[in-house]
Amino acid sequence: MADEPHESKTKILNAALRVVRAKGYSATRVEDICAAAGLTKGSFFHHFKGKEELAIAAARHWGAVTGAMFAAAPYHRQAEPLDRLFAYIDFRKALISGDPAQFSCFAGTTVQEVFDTHPTIRDACSATISSHAATLEADIGAAMRQYRVNGQWTAKTLALHTQAVIQGAFILAKATQDPSVALASLDHLRRYFELLFHPQPEETEP
Amino acid sequence: MADEPHESKTKILNAALRVVRAKGYSATRVEDICAAAGLTKGSFFHHFKGKEELAIAAARHWGAVTGAMFAAAPYHRQAEPLDRLFAYIDFRKALISGDPAQFSCFAGTTVQEVFDTHPTIRDACSATISSHAATLEADIGAAMRQYRVNGQWTAKTLALHTQAVIQGAFILAKATQDPSVALASLDHLRRYFELLFHPQPEETEP
Repeated sequence: MADEPHESKTKILNAALRVVRAKGYSATRVEDICAAAGLTKGSFFHHFKGKEELAIAAARHWGAVTGAMFAAAPYHRQAEPLDRLFAYIDFRKALISGDPAQFSCFAGTTVQEVFDTHPTIRDACSATISSHAATLEADIGAAMRQYRVNGQWTAKTLALHTQAVIQGAFILAKATQDPSVALASLDHLRRYFELLFHPQPEETEP
Repeated sequence: MADEPHESKTKILNAALRVVRAKGYSATRVEDICAAAGLTKGSFFHHFKGKEELAIAAARHWGAVTGAMFAAAPYHRQAEPLDRLFAYIDFRKALISGDPAQFSCFAGTTVQEVFDTHPTIRDACSATISSHAATLEADIGAAMRQYRVNGQWTAKTLALHTQAVIQGAFILAKATQDPSVALASLDHLRRYFELLFHPQPEETEP
């Protein structure tokens, strides 16, 4: 019994992630989320004052859920930093198939709409994007040192660029209704990494 | 007098571009657009059956306005295809400053929300993104031939990738409230072009 409120709260948060990714934040009504969660409005308002408070909690929930998923993902098993980065991009590609409402980003979708009208939701979404990007920085920095890459850029800007490509690829997939357009963009991102960190044959072959 | 209805229609379309880019499609009410246009709801409904018809017309208007702007832009004056592509990216960078509602994309913002719920609006937005991307294909193809680039990719996928980066950069700028994050992503895009089309010194120097 003690767990019940918590369980219903999680159901509401998961429903919010599904519904908002399918129809956007503004078009999503509290009723839609309750219907998707199989719960009453009474239950909703027991946990949240309204849609804005829900959206902030949903952004944090999105960060927690995807953060755990990426932390457990197989790309970390690669021994070399650059190989982990390639495997990360390949893992992102593997997630892209079927319906964009399933593979697109709650934070990117929501921030697109609310950046000016709901600063607290925007900042909660921004935090999930930035903190995910930051998980790539150590490997990018290590690859920069390993391949002696010194450019007019930093590990942080390249990590954020990967997220720009992924977010933009989601928009193209939504626009064209064709996941292969998004996959082609991630292939270009992977090729950029190959060209930035090109192994010198004399250094890498035994 | 004969021009008046046409003028009010254009005012409504321009107001739609401004308001939707600031608060998203779903949050935009007909009243908001009328207020921004300085016109009555009677005038609005004289021209449009409702918000969906307006959005389709606004997507086409966005394509026409930005199409004319890009067609007249100085990057076309470069003599070499690759230089035109670099100048295009530099031109896109020059457009990014101040408020994201001013420099972001009506089509990308709208398609993010309506891809599943309003297929006719989605397709009108998709057409403007695809047709703009297509304007880069001839120069990319020419640069591929000039620098003997033969990869697992086409001029079309690279043209679409430029738009993915730009759309994603807009999302990061909205999330972080910092246009420099978007500019850094466009710098990475420019660097990708530099690495893809690297002039062979013996071929390019006299």
